[in-house]
Amino acid sequence: MATDQLSLTFSALSDPTRRALLARLAGGEATVNELAEPFEMTLAAISKHLRVLEGAGLISRSKDAQYRPARLDARPLAAASEWIGDYARFWEANMDALDSYLNALQQLTTNTPSTAGETK
Amino acid sequence: MATDQLSLTFSALSDPTRRALLARLAGGEATVNELAEPFEMTLAAISKHLRVLEGAGLISRSKDAQYRPARLDARPLAAASEWIGDYARFWEANMDALDSYLNALQQLTTNTPSTAGETK
Repeated sequence: MATDQLSLTFSALSDPTRRALLARLAGGEATVNELAEPFEMTLAAISKHLRVLEGAGLISRSKDAQYRPARLDARPLAAASEWIGDYARFWEANMDALDSYLNALQQLTTNTPSTAGETK
Repeated sequence: MATDQLSLTFSALSDPTRRALLARLAGGEATVNELAEPFEMTLAAISKHLRVLEGAGLISRSKDAQYRPARLDARPLAAASEWIGDYARFWEANMDALDSYLNALQQLTTNTPSTAGETK
C-alpha cells in the first residue's frame, strides 16, 4: 500500500463513513461518542476510521483531554484538491472542445440548404 | 470496501502509479505497452492498475482494437474535485481567520505604546 501523503489522503477519503466524519468535524471538534451517534456502528469501528483519518493528517486529536476530541485539519486536502484540479481542467477543456464542435456542426446544418424537398 | 462512485474514485487515486498513468493519459490515449514503458513493472501489474482505473470509470478502453488503447475519462474527477473543494474552502476560511487574527494582533502591538523603556 502506498504511503506517500497524497495516497494516504485519497485512501482516507475512499470511504463514505470517513467522509461523513470529516463533514461533521468541519462543524467543530467532537468526541468519539458524539461522532458515533448518527452511525449504526460500534465505537470501535468509529475509532478505527478516526485512526485512518489521523494517520493521513486529516484530523488531530488532543492527547491529554479525557475524551480526546477530534478536530478537522484540512491542509492535506489542499494538495489533493490541487492534484484533482489539474484533471478537472482537462475535463472542462474537453467539454469546451465538444461544445465548440457541436456548435460548429449546428451552424453547418443550419446554413446548408436542405435538398430533401427538392428531389421529390 | 466501499463501492459508491466517490469512494471508487478516491480509492483509484490512492496509488502513485495509477496517478502517473492518468497523468500520462491526459496527454492522449496509449496502449498498455506504451503505458508500462516508464515503470519498472510487469505488464500484468500495469494491467491490474488499469483495471482499477477502468472500474472507477477514470479510463475507458477500446473493446475491439487489438491493443486496446486506454483513454482518460476525467468525469468522475469532477465530483471528487467538488467534494474536496468544499473542505479546501473550509481550510482557506480558517487561514483567512488566522490572517485576520494575526493582523489584528500586529496592529494592537503597534498601536499600544511600549512601557518597556519607561520603567527603566
